[in-house]
Amino acid sequence: MNNFNFYSPTHFVFGKNRESETGKYVKRFGGSKVLIHFGGGSVIKSGLLDRVKESLTKENISFTELGGVVPNPRSGLVYEGVEICKREKIDFILAVGGGSAIDSAKAIAIGALYDGDFWDFYTGKRVENALPVATILTISAAGSEGSTGSVITHEDGMLKRAANSDALRPVFSVLNPELTCSLPPFQTACGATDMMAHVLERYFTNTKDVEITDRLCEAVLLTVIKETPKALANPNDYEARANIMWAGTVAHNDICGVGREQDWSTHQIEHELSGLYDVAHGAGLAVMFPAWMKYVMKHDVMRFAQFAVRVWGCQMDFQNPENTAKEGILKFEQFLTSIGMPIRFSELGAKAEDIPTLAKTMGLGTGTLGSFVKLTTEDVTKIYELAV
Amino acid sequence: MNNFNFYSPTHFVFGKNRESETGKYVKRFGGSKVLIHFGGGSVIKSGLLDRVKESLTKENISFTELGGVVPNPRSGLVYEGVEICKREKIDFILAVGGGSAIDSAKAIAIGALYDGDFWDFYTGKRVENALPVATILTISAAGSEGSTGSVITHEDGMLKRAANSDALRPVFSVLNPELTCSLPPFQTACGATDMMAHVLERYFTNTKDVEITDRLCEAVLLTVIKETPKALANPNDYEARANIMWAGTVAHNDICGVGREQDWSTHQIEHELSGLYDVAHGAGLAVMFPAWMKYVMKHDVMRFAQFAVRVWGCQMDFQNPENTAKEGILKFEQFLTSIGMPIRFSELGAKAEDIPTLAKTMGLGTGTLGSFVKLTTEDVTKIYELAV
Repeated sequence: MNNFNFYSPTHFVFGKNRESETGKYVKRFGGSKVLIHFGGGSVIKSGLLDRVKESLTKENISFTELGGVVPNPRSGLVYEGVEICKREKIDFILAVGGGSAIDSAKAIAIGALYDGDFWDFYTGKRVENALPVATILTISAAGSEGSTGSVITHEDGMLKRAANSDALRPVFSVLNPELTCSLPPFQTACGATDMMAHVLERYFTNTKDVEITDRLCEAVLLTVIKETPKALANPNDYEARANIMWAGTVAHNDICGVGREQDWSTHQIEHELSGLYDVAHGAGLAVMFPAWMKYVMKHDVMRFAQFAVRVWGCQMDFQNPENTAKEGILKFEQFLTSIGMPIRFSELGAKAEDIPTLAKTMGLGTGTLGSFVKLTTEDVTKIYELAV
Repeated sequence: MNNFNFYSPTHFVFGKNRESETGKYVKRFGGSKVLIHFGGGSVIKSGLLDRVKESLTKENISFTELGGVVPNPRSGLVYEGVEICKREKIDFILAVGGGSAIDSAKAIAIGALYDGDFWDFYTGKRVENALPVATILTISAAGSEGSTGSVITHEDGMLKRAANSDALRPVFSVLNPELTCSLPPFQTACGATDMMAHVLERYFTNTKDVEITDRLCEAVLLTVIKETPKALANPNDYEARANIMWAGTVAHNDICGVGREQDWSTHQIEHELSGLYDVAHGAGLAVMFPAWMKYVMKHDVMRFAQFAVRVWGCQMDFQNPENTAKEGILKFEQFLTSIGMPIRFSELGAKAEDIPTLAKTMGLGTGTLGSFVKLTTEDVTKIYELAV
């Protein structure tokens, strides 16, 4: 096990109707002038935004609103948010929505305390400071409600890039599973795929003897596998929604990743895809993760066999572990298909002829991507090809 | 799943040689005048205390020392610590040791900011305030390095009682598994039993549909079951020690307990035992947990069957699930025996004739204990009898 620091100070406020306490928590964490940041009409139509504003007003907290976040959130709105924060001396950002609203809020939080271009921090500069961000989560998927990360797409070239910092952990996050009951099946399944991917990027590691983290990873995967079909069959199944929602947070607050080398190459491979085609992140992951697995499986057959046995309940083939390893990947693909996810380029609307562009945009040059297996541009090309 | 709050802001600093960074973290968390609190000679003999002091000195942090904490830590030393804190205007408490040193440090931290008797908080008063506590953990067991709890034995009557509060979460905890390699086998096994018990008190619940928390509980149990025999066979197995150490923290920072009713009756039943005989807490738990299980099993046979199948790898007896449930308890007992734990009163030096005293000291009167099954004094008596 590698040395690590684990610091996850987000205060999670979980359960039915908890958004009514938003004002109380904003106050506790020192917010007095809030930017409420959200996406489209659903949080307005559902009445959620009104309830949140009412809760702020009750605590005499003033606020400004900025809506319009889109999936794969864009730099343009971030620039707008930063300007509002500076002009109106905003001291607290409240994201109401899913990972896109939260990631956009985090980017604004960084930019608000910086004189230069916030994009600097998405291209390598270290984030030291940001306004406090809190979230009211409406989509279980990204894990951004408890994570250090933010992913933004720059409209200049549609580059999708990430920033990471302890300063980006939300100070509190309200998780009310009821708010996710209205999610359409496709988005529910995309969310489940995203959280599985967050675990898998941590699970496939070269670090030996990280049993506790392995087991925690498997715990989250087993939960998502059990609960997602229930939520799809009955969207108002509160218990399934609750299990999925908390699983999504645990999947990405890094309790599943400490003490080990992590490998985020599939996310990066997917980012190019959703950057170019603007497909749903979860759907892109469903296409790319099995392809990555097939390509790297021989690097550590026994780890893939463990995945197959412990997560998918496969019987171990002791004479030929590779059969078990392959069976696990197949079961994963079958599961993705069963919840309505694409697993091939064509289902996404992606085109084989764009593969050179995708591989090139990644900008590896003569460098490599990932750690479980270090991938060259040629390897990445072959992984895209496996997904066609 | 029940509504819950989860707030675990302890900064964990995990790995080899991390205690050398102690001064840096004390400074970061605002300590300038530190009380170093520890137990007996082992932290002195091993040179750990000197290394810690050196690290504080390097950051120009002044300190006072108070050693002498004993297992099942006593009120007397707490009173002494509180007096030192008030007299010397201590602003930060650093526990170096295991759960006893940490629990004692937490009690001192409460008392230092209170004009009355700190014991008030162990007999019902709500803890709102305490000095910041940090820990350098040398024994994996109690989970106090990341928990809200503290257990102290009052010398007047040898009453063992607990206080719980978010204010008692350590601000940071250094976890260096190397420091646990010198632990004798008995203490290693006691620690493993204690962490399993922390999970089990959360696992056996009447709350339905808490799959994610169930799976996380099972993850910790499976890890402890796999790694403890390795640490016993080879005390210097760093990887086994590391897995056990982090499992102990995860077992008790409440990530395994959220969203569900918890039942701490076995801890309470054990507290009377170790209060009266001064036996090791883990050893007492090894004796009392299987007894409690046998007594309450019929309340929810399928939950015990789940425990048997998922944790102990038993084959489900679909025709008679009770057989499987019983097999799980038996496997648990066999495991405890295999790691050198007692499972009967006689092995502890406890006496059947003291059972009425044990049951009476608990002071249930006409009330009940626990939630999975609400236990009367008569039930508790029968559970003690099952352990004879």
